[in-house]
Amino acid sequence: MTEIQIEVIGLIAACLTTSSFLPQVYKIWKFKSSDGISLSMYLFMLTGVILWFIYGLLIGSISIIIANFIAALLQMMIIYYKLKLK
Amino acid sequence: MTEIQIEVIGLIAACLTTSSFLPQVYKIWKFKSSDGISLSMYLFMLTGVILWFIYGLLIGSISIIIANFIAALLQMMIIYYKLKLK
Repeated sequence: MTEIQIEVIGLIAACLTTSSFLPQVYKIWKFKSSDGISLSMYLFMLTGVILWFIYGLLIGSISIIIANFIAALLQMMIIYYKLKLK
Repeated sequence: MTEIQIEVIGLIAACLTTSSFLPQVYKIWKFKSSDGISLSMYLFMLTGVILWFIYGLLIGSISIIIANFIAALLQMMIIYYKLKLK
């Protein structure tokens, strides 16, 4: 397999796992409510995602860098809403 | 940075992002209820996680392999409960 083919698999994986946060962001934004969302869980995840981003930079994986950059942005939005709507 | 130091960052990231699924598994198991959980979202995520696992094998990243193997197991448990408790 070529490096490009491997990155295509990584990018499809990135789309699938990252977009799974979108319904949550949309739900909070639409209903202006963050009830039932655990702040500590998202802070936990955000820390993990930032570390994955650093890991992606260190091993030079474009898929990991892009996936975790977008995931971090979405999670920061969820955390921002959670704190704002509290 | 050595390769081992880089993998340590990856493994810490793996612990943080993977363990964020544990409260969900515990909650379903404790209350024997999967209400409010989106089956399609988890099927989406499971597909993504399996692709990340394959990507990890292809680029030879231990952190990605371990993180996504465990995440896939946890997500399969959630999907199993969701279908069983329906």
